[in-house]
Amino acid sequence: MKRLLLVLLLGTLAAGELVAEDGYRLWLRYDRFLWKKVRESFSDHLQTVVLQTPSGVNSEVLAAAEAELIRGMAGMIHHEPRVYVVAGEASADLRVDGFAVNKVTVDGRVGVRITANSDAGVLYGVFDILRRLQLRESMADLDYASTPKIARRVLNHWDDLNRFVERGYAGFSLWEWPYLPEIRSPRYQDYGRALASLGINGSVITSVNANALVLTPDYLEKVAALADEFRPWGVRVYLTARFSAPIEIGGLDTADPLDPEVRAWWAAKVDEIYEHVPDFGGFVVKANSEGQPGPHEYGRDHAQGANLLAAPLSKNGRDGIVMWRAFVYDFENNTDRVKQAYNQFVPLDGKFADNVLLQIKNGPLDFMPREAFSPLFGAMPQTRLMMELQITQEYLGASNQLAYLAPLFEEALDQDTFAQGEGSTIARVTDGSLKGHELSVIAGVANTGSDRNWTGHPLAQSNWYAFGRLAWDHSLSSEEIAEEWAQLTFGTKEPSKKETAAHAGIVDILMGSRETVVNYSMPLGLHHIMERGHHYGPGPWVEGGRPDWTAPYYHQADEAGLGADRVASGSNAIEQYAPELQALWGDLETVPDNLLLWFHHAPWDHEMDSGRLLWDELALRYQQGVDEADAMLARWVGLKREIDLERWEATRQRFVVQAKDAREWRDACLLYFQQFSKRPLPEGVEAPAHDLQHYIDVNRRYFPGHPGEY
Amino acid sequence: MKRLLLVLLLGTLAAGELVAEDGYRLWLRYDRFLWKKVRESFSDHLQTVVLQTPSGVNSEVLAAAEAELIRGMAGMIHHEPRVYVVAGEASADLRVDGFAVNKVTVDGRVGVRITANSDAGVLYGVFDILRRLQLRESMADLDYASTPKIARRVLNHWDDLNRFVERGYAGFSLWEWPYLPEIRSPRYQDYGRALASLGINGSVITSVNANALVLTPDYLEKVAALADEFRPWGVRVYLTARFSAPIEIGGLDTADPLDPEVRAWWAAKVDEIYEHVPDFGGFVVKANSEGQPGPHEYGRDHAQGANLLAAPLSKNGRDGIVMWRAFVYDFENNTDRVKQAYNQFVPLDGKFADNVLLQIKNGPLDFMPREAFSPLFGAMPQTRLMMELQITQEYLGASNQLAYLAPLFEEALDQDTFAQGEGSTIARVTDGSLKGHELSVIAGVANTGSDRNWTGHPLAQSNWYAFGRLAWDHSLSSEEIAEEWAQLTFGTKEPSKKETAAHAGIVDILMGSRETVVNYSMPLGLHHIMERGHHYGPGPWVEGGRPDWTAPYYHQADEAGLGADRVASGSNAIEQYAPELQALWGDLETVPDNLLLWFHHAPWDHEMDSGRLLWDELALRYQQGVDEADAMLARWVGLKREIDLERWEATRQRFVVQAKDAREWRDACLLYFQQFSKRPLPEGVEAPAHDLQHYIDVNRRYFPGHPGEY
Repeated sequence: MKRLLLVLLLGTLAAGELVAEDGYRLWLRYDRFLWKKVRESFSDHLQTVVLQTPSGVNSEVLAAAEAELIRGMAGMIHHEPRVYVVAGEASADLRVDGFAVNKVTVDGRVGVRITANSDAGVLYGVFDILRRLQLRESMADLDYASTPKIARRVLNHWDDLNRFVERGYAGFSLWEWPYLPEIRSPRYQDYGRALASLGINGSVITSVNANALVLTPDYLEKVAALADEFRPWGVRVYLTARFSAPIEIGGLDTADPLDPEVRAWWAAKVDEIYEHVPDFGGFVVKANSEGQPGPHEYGRDHAQGANLLAAPLSKNGRDGIVMWRAFVYDFENNTDRVKQAYNQFVPLDGKFADNVLLQIKNGPLDFMPREAFSPLFGAMPQTRLMMELQITQEYLGASNQLAYLAPLFEEALDQDTFAQGEGSTIARVTDGSLKGHELSVIAGVANTGSDRNWTGHPLAQSNWYAFGRLAWDHSLSSEEIAEEWAQLTFGTKEPSKKETAAHAGIVDILMGSRETVVNYSMPLGLHHIMERGHHYGPGPWVEGGRPDWTAPYYHQADEAGLGADRVASGSNAIEQYAPELQALWGDLETVPDNLLLWFHHAPWDHEMDSGRLLWDELALRYQQGVDEADAMLARWVGLKREIDLERWEATRQRFVVQAKDAREWRDACLLYFQQFSKRPLPEGVEAPAHDLQHYIDVNRRYFPGHPGEY
Repeated sequence: MKRLLLVLLLGTLAAGELVAEDGYRLWLRYDRFLWKKVRESFSDHLQTVVLQTPSGVNSEVLAAAEAELIRGMAGMIHHEPRVYVVAGEASADLRVDGFAVNKVTVDGRVGVRITANSDAGVLYGVFDILRRLQLRESMADLDYASTPKIARRVLNHWDDLNRFVERGYAGFSLWEWPYLPEIRSPRYQDYGRALASLGINGSVITSVNANALVLTPDYLEKVAALADEFRPWGVRVYLTARFSAPIEIGGLDTADPLDPEVRAWWAAKVDEIYEHVPDFGGFVVKANSEGQPGPHEYGRDHAQGANLLAAPLSKNGRDGIVMWRAFVYDFENNTDRVKQAYNQFVPLDGKFADNVLLQIKNGPLDFMPREAFSPLFGAMPQTRLMMELQITQEYLGASNQLAYLAPLFEEALDQDTFAQGEGSTIARVTDGSLKGHELSVIAGVANTGSDRNWTGHPLAQSNWYAFGRLAWDHSLSSEEIAEEWAQLTFGTKEPSKKETAAHAGIVDILMGSRETVVNYSMPLGLHHIMERGHHYGPGPWVEGGRPDWTAPYYHQADEAGLGADRVASGSNAIEQYAPELQALWGDLETVPDNLLLWFHHAPWDHEMDSGRLLWDELALRYQQGVDEADAMLARWVGLKREIDLERWEATRQRFVVQAKDAREWRDACLLYFQQFSKRPLPEGVEAPAHDLQHYIDVNRRYFPGHPGEY
């Protein structure tokens, strides 16, 4: 009967009264404030709005800004301000996308002025004011400025042309390729708008495992259609470039970057792209990595490959860039996988063109729940480095599990590389301030898809949001962002004490969630012990095939102990870090618990800071993860009356799965590792529900994000 | 700027005022009537509602009925009736799902009583009343009954477990297999509700090209979850059975239907299914067809195969059925493909168990824009025959083109087989009345998917609707259904003259659309001249591989003429029809134009009824198709002010594509056939825009409904 009640309630909504809370609106909920007095307390200060840019012309971006402003204010405070678009001088302080807001009076009407150096800056200013309005912040004395610390803030979509999204857990690709260019989903506009609301100004619409087909004339028409849809929202389109495209679609015999015909082909192809997309952003390239073609086939290096594509992107006044991925490793190479990118790229420092950035994942392995940072961030002083974060949860429970990733992003951004002494954080490497580069980029691998709520898990919207907010301002704390997001996304028309409690509950749940996932899946620095293929669920037993795709390669469990030996006794990967970090992490006594097994093969009876032995600590961490997953579910259930039914129920179902999955991780990993430790489970750890073989036999056949059976 | 206006308008909607007209609500739009007086003119007669069934118990179906009633009335007339659930005697007149409605007064309150023999009957009665209310029909003197002519009205979903839908053009499968059983999309309820609103009471949730995996325990849990979701809406779940399942998932060496172990395996498997789904409906089987496994591998016939599965479905009081598809043909057989099913099945008449139905497509080939009917409908007097219609537009332009299919369905249902003299229509074969069978079934291959509007093309919802309405009552005319659907789907809160004009425009567009598609793609009885693989666009040149998958096999164009020779001089397929039809269709002079090339290889200079020669008539029909496609677009554009912007624009974009596609068909086919006719295009036919090779080279790489590149 519960379900029928839901139907009934939704029925009332559908009858023309209210918008269903199905998550489609994301954090952009402009519902009318309930009390007229409250509405007026805001509208009194917003009688007029002045939008000021150097152009002063009503461009499509400014038209979008104005429409958004009216949409938001008409929605929330039932008021349409008088809007003026005026020309004004540029301000050096604001850089390209920044904006300033201050009070203004026009014809006796009190209001605000948004000043920016670009039309997009005005758009960001509008979204900023509307966000403050959503948060009920006073509009009385607005006087502030905001400038993004990083110039290009881009989403990477791992979307295939058949609409499957690699590692996508929210339905299918938003891009309806077969129907483009003629048929255009209204969702393209909503997508652009969502990006603009966060200040994200670029979208790489194709997968890093690239298909050259997207560069053919028919597909470039489709790409142009998407670019047209996104342009009013200040979002530029980027593509992935398949290195062998000159052969596959160009009819050449080679893709050698030094071959004149190859250079001419790419130059012409880039010209053709700009004819379709005049504000094209550039390419992302995954080359000589996991089977993708690249310059190594021709005895050339990554710099020669990258510069081949960079040249035509920078001619004729273009500002296109190449984001060359540093995610490279070779399974025929006996070197520890986490050392290989550093070894390949550091010798190339200084050889990359000015419009090439090296796109480096936060860790040297692959988006694990926790990794040490990639040592490349502390190297290559003459190269522009950018960071790639993964918003989609490839290794953190897909869209079934909650893992609020802002703490992970924050951990990565705040990490000190010591490259130029203390304070040489990855944030400062990425934003260009450490080396004085104007061109700076940050990328996030999107968790979006065709699901109605965009991200599958209703709370996973927070990860998209957090990426965008940190890309704009990496000094924001993950907790600030969580608070903001919770209020925007779950706030009601009239905030109450109960609602404040609900927001606090959501923030608590979010803030603990990533560490919970770490605890029940890969605690103490464990990594890469998931199932093969879909990467969901435990697989410490995964062996066979490429050694660097097995689990034992990483956990190295034996009767002596557990963990990857990356100090001098082992692969010595630690030598790629600054001396300060080598000292801290290289010593079994000083390494923090959370990186212990990343760097050390520690004895089972190693004494932890807690006083417990490693085996006991490991088992208790797994148990703690399960307990925390249960607690998240219980806490969420307790919020039922404060949250709309549809999103509450969708989230509750996923917390049930997460609690079940946490048990599977705990039981499977402890049973597996117990074969080596030969020790009993400590008190407080629940006995496994099944034997080890049961967990090995679990077979997830059709997992989202892949067309085949695993 | 137009697009921004759209954004702005949608913005206002999203701000809490109104539900966006994105098509999600289908024909179930319960918006409040604008004027209080109008609302009261209805609510005065609906003060109370009595729901009467033999059970009289508030089952989940009755709860759904009651919730729907309140949803609809609260929505449209802002009124909640007092509802009573009472027990009452069954009525033989109403059969199982029928209902009667009449006036009633309870405690002085005027209202209506819905009487039915089953809870589902009440549910259908509720939807019927609400439909009448949507149509503003008077509630003053309700006194009528309605009984479905066919007992089981089912949708067939060709949905794969990876969520691709074979021949699906509306996104991906609605069934989110990886997330089941725990995570349940709210859309499952909305799907069940939509089916119930049409009286559809069954859903075959898996593809005819079956995957045995769905019969494994893990997947049966998922199936059970879907069945639980649909049950309140009176919808039973059916599955497709892969004939080789005993080998693939059962570990047996054989799937021989006479093998005791195989029989035991299926018996146990069916028991297991009923444990999960107590109201399981039965199996659909595609066997020994297009590579699917079947009884022929073991020297057994279709009846032995079907009866194997039928036995356990009918034991223990179960009422499960087997729908055994007659869509069989063998490429190693030299017999005309359209004759083969008849040849295979007619000798088996009388050998099928009572709970087996032979599932026959309307035509003997494969869902062409027009076919002669399948001669099996006029044969097999001792066998239960059911019809399979295709709602999804595999050969009629996918979801890009409008082809309102009710006229096609109507043409098929009304066709006289003369099996027991005049009046032996396929409708009467299908509903069981011709042979006096209680068990009757009709199936439609669904056009639904995960697209927000369910069917991709906004107007393709009409095909889903029309199938459901005809399945309930095949005596409805396609025009009645179009009128009903247009009003339900595009009606506004306060009907106006303009709106009436808009509805008439929509009905006109719908009613002409199927013949338009016939004209520009396969006029005069042409068939199977589409592109290979995706079946979209022209391909009269398609050769190579299986001869029965080529185009010349069917059009037989040569210098003498055009068309399949199916009279005595050729394959003599016509001999499978009644003498009356042989006389009519077998004579070049009496065969109607629209089946000319289906039965005859006619000379290029054959004189048509119009007085024109065949070649000229053919060319002018193609041109007519283009002109009509242009006219549909123009007519739709003219309706702009009467239709909400989102659906109007989405439809307009598709009409643009359709007009373009119509030209491609015309030009490609006329250029191709002109090679044989060696005649000039007659006056009034536009010259082709390109040469033939241009059209041959068109390459639709990733077409919806298939994960690979074509």
